[in-house]
Amino acid sequence: MEQCSSLGKTALLIAMAEGELIDTYAASARDKGFAVTYGKVGSMDIQKIIAAIETAARREGLVDERYRSQHALYHAILDALQGLGRGQIQLGNVLRTVGLRFSIVIGPRTLKDTDDLWLAVGMYGMIGAPIKGHEHEVCGLGINHL
Amino acid sequence: MEQCSSLGKTALLIAMAEGELIDTYAASARDKGFAVTYGKVGSMDIQKIIAAIETAARREGLVDERYRSQHALYHAILDALQGLGRGQIQLGNVLRTVGLRFSIVIGPRTLKDTDDLWLAVGMYGMIGAPIKGHEHEVCGLGINHL
Amino acid sequence: MEQCSSLGKTALLIAMAEGELIDTYAASARDKGFAVTYGKVGSMDIQKIIAAIETAARREGLVDERYRSQHALYHAILDALQGLGRGQIQLGNVLRTVGLRFSIVIGPRTLKDTDDLWLAVGMYGMIGAPIKGHEHEVCGLGINHL
Amino acid sequence: MEQCSSLGKTALLIAMAEGELIDTYAASARDKGFAVTYGKVGSMDIQKIIAAIETAARREGLVDERYRSQHALYHAILDALQGLGRGQIQLGNVLRTVGLRFSIVIGPRTLKDTDDLWLAVGMYGMIGAPIKGHEHEVCGLGINHL
Amino acid sequence: MEQCSSLGKTALLIAMAEGELIDTYAASARDKGFAVTYGKVGSMDIQKIIAAIETAARREGLVDERYRSQHALYHAILDALQGLGRGQIQLGNVLRTVGLRFSIVIGPRTLKDTDDLWLAVGMYGMIGAPIKGHEHEVCGLGINHL
Amino acid sequence: MEQCSSLGKTALLIAMAEGELIDTYAASARDKGFAVTYGKVGSMDIQKIIAAIETAARREGLVDERYRSQHALYHAILDALQGLGRGQIQLGNVLRTVGLRFSIVIGPRTLKDTDDLWLAVGMYGMIGAPIKGHEHEVCGLGINHL
Ligand SMILES: [Mg+2]
Ligand SMILES: [Mg+2]
Ligand SMILES: [Mg+2]
Ligand SMILES: [Mg+2]
Ligand SMILES: [Mg+2]
Ligand SMILES: [Mg+2]
Repeated sequence: MEQCSSLGKTALLIAMAEGELIDTYAASARDKGFAVTYGKVGSMDIQKIIAAIETAARREGLVDERYRSQHALYHAILDALQGLGRGQIQLGNVLRTVGLRFSIVIGPRTLKDTDDLWLAVGMYGMIGAPIKGHEHEVCGLGINHL
Repeated sequence: MEQCSSLGKTALLIAMAEGELIDTYAASARDKGFAVTYGKVGSMDIQKIIAAIETAARREGLVDERYRSQHALYHAILDALQGLGRGQIQLGNVLRTVGLRFSIVIGPRTLKDTDDLWLAVGMYGMIGAPIKGHEHEVCGLGINHL
Repeated sequence: MEQCSSLGKTALLIAMAEGELIDTYAASARDKGFAVTYGKVGSMDIQKIIAAIETAARREGLVDERYRSQHALYHAILDALQGLGRGQIQLGNVLRTVGLRFSIVIGPRTLKDTDDLWLAVGMYGMIGAPIKGHEHEVCGLGINHL
Repeated sequence: MEQCSSLGKTALLIAMAEGELIDTYAASARDKGFAVTYGKVGSMDIQKIIAAIETAARREGLVDERYRSQHALYHAILDALQGLGRGQIQLGNVLRTVGLRFSIVIGPRTLKDTDDLWLAVGMYGMIGAPIKGHEHEVCGLGINHL
Repeated sequence: MEQCSSLGKTALLIAMAEGELIDTYAASARDKGFAVTYGKVGSMDIQKIIAAIETAARREGLVDERYRSQHALYHAILDALQGLGRGQIQLGNVLRTVGLRFSIVIGPRTLKDTDDLWLAVGMYGMIGAPIKGHEHEVCGLGINHL
Repeated sequence: MEQCSSLGKTALLIAMAEGELIDTYAASARDKGFAVTYGKVGSMDIQKIIAAIETAARREGLVDERYRSQHALYHAILDALQGLGRGQIQLGNVLRTVGLRFSIVIGPRTLKDTDDLWLAVGMYGMIGAPIKGHEHEVCGLGINHL
């Protein structure tokens, strides 16, 4: 994580981190100038995943009350959900459920070129049937200009 | 990477690693019992990306000559490409190009339950217009039973 | 609208018209020989939008009780919904809502060639988050042979 | 059916058979070494169709309790549903309903090469509006390695 | 085939038939009042498959020179291709190839209700990597009002 | 057009206008404070349509050389292309061609709330088989924050 200087990788590494590493990674990213938040959500409803991420972003001040920042976030979430759903942005409707860790990171696309703000949404977790252990990993990354 | 005990995260971390870390991560994953290969590909043609990954897997012996292992790999690649393309599995046709690092990892879904073989394809890189610097990060993960 | 001689543009202009212009446009289209109806619907459920359009068409006699005319209408609606949903034909499931004005127009594809009946569905409105003002315009057009 | 030596055609012919032919076809397929089950399901919910097929497969022992066989079945079902939905894997959400006969067949891809196990899901039935007679035929076939 | 009284099943059975059965099935369908043609096509290009089917339909007089009948055929082909492609209507672009038998059948949806003309396109064949034997079965059915 | 105070409708009306009305509409929109350009493109290649629109926007100064404005434009084009393609963002690959008029409009979403910049891409034209007269109307609208 120390060498990580790009927005999307930062988002993915935080979403994939476990235990104490999560806070360590987030702190490291903040030190470099990224704004960061993260959280967890498990659901069979896509709209609950979107709502959890939007709520986290708003609560932590990563997006403001203006529509344009929320529009940027919404479409970054939809893009990340394409990696999650791989063909259909549906969960319960196609009899599957997901347990996710997500992150939202705001900053330049890379620390080499810091005069522009972008937004990344990272997702990492397990997707599968509603049967214990019947699941495999899944991830998603969405990037948008802010 | 030391703590990483799952197939998909292993594939993603290797695809996202840079410089000497790539070999270090691959070696660490092999020590745990995963079969691993990785490579790079840049193209405006989806079929060249698929071919590069299939060729790497075959050359390194991760899939054999039987159709079933190549079928498993093909669909894992397609799944990973959904995260990459986010809605269309197309590049040059929609005037975009990609520079990727990819990995293929074979092993159990998690080291806690080693009696079953699965396959993960990880992709990480830059997607964008065919103009220098006009690009952002992208990733994909596909998982299939072997 | 006076110069408009094609089916799809007629449908779009009526769907996009406001206030008294709606009736004026519809009357102008009927004078040229098009059958026209229109209406409004707001919902987070795609099926309610489909039902509202199908009901309007049936009530105004634009489609009859035979399945073939309703099949033509249904697929024209689905096509228009692709422009609305841009990738997913989903609303509430992906945490968005829509307020639409729609039109159904039946006639030749163009007044220059009147010996064939086609059907157009036009949609125009606002799509966005379930938060006041957090929305932008959206449109859709579906055309089918009758 | 006597000449049928391939997995997918076997699945389709059983799903399309009527009356006594269903059992005759299934018996003929079993004589050749295929494992077969079949059933009926009508619904506006995709998840009920998936559940009906998964339940039939499990009850008849075509898949065991391990995730890998259920993963193979799940993705074969999703593939077959693409033929059914033709663009959206949705039913009630887009105001349509389906009445299906389905089959699950396990065996080699073809009797000429019997050293490998694959799985086929066949679907055949009627799709349409929730109005009697307003429907047309639909089919789907999904094939996966087991 | 003798008992087959519906448009779509007729199309599928002809597309799936082999050897002399093809002509026998087509003749049986014509005796019942269906117009029928069929053919073969192998390609990595979706447009060649569409062209082969459109050419067969035109040559055999199943569609006339008017756009409406060709529009009906085109969208039935696209629908059938959804079953074939299962998520992407692409072949060579995603490094796969197809060998198909197809049929076009025109008539009522069912012989019980003969006062309406519909069109069915059936497809059956093998899809896979451009490596001998690395392929599995695939099918598609598209139905449209004429 | 006089009453038109919103970004997307402005884009659609300009794309749908004919003859002298095009310039009149564009001038009216510019008077209200919108930045506007428009053009024509006919092609069987999606990438040529994207390139034509991007080139027009750059030449007229609607987007600058920074990636963020070109990213906003690119995704607005892709969104508009969903209305055009209705399920597949493909033309020649699925044996169809398009003749389009397009517009790019920059400004507030509505004149009532002018403190924010958005971008709209409107498309209107004919889509069909590569046979004269075998085509019907099509439209698309994409909106993005700038
Ligand atoms: Mg939007
Ligand atoms: Mg396959
Ligand atoms: Mg239909
Ligand atoms: Mg899976
Ligand atoms: Mg059409
Ligand atoms: Mg982008």
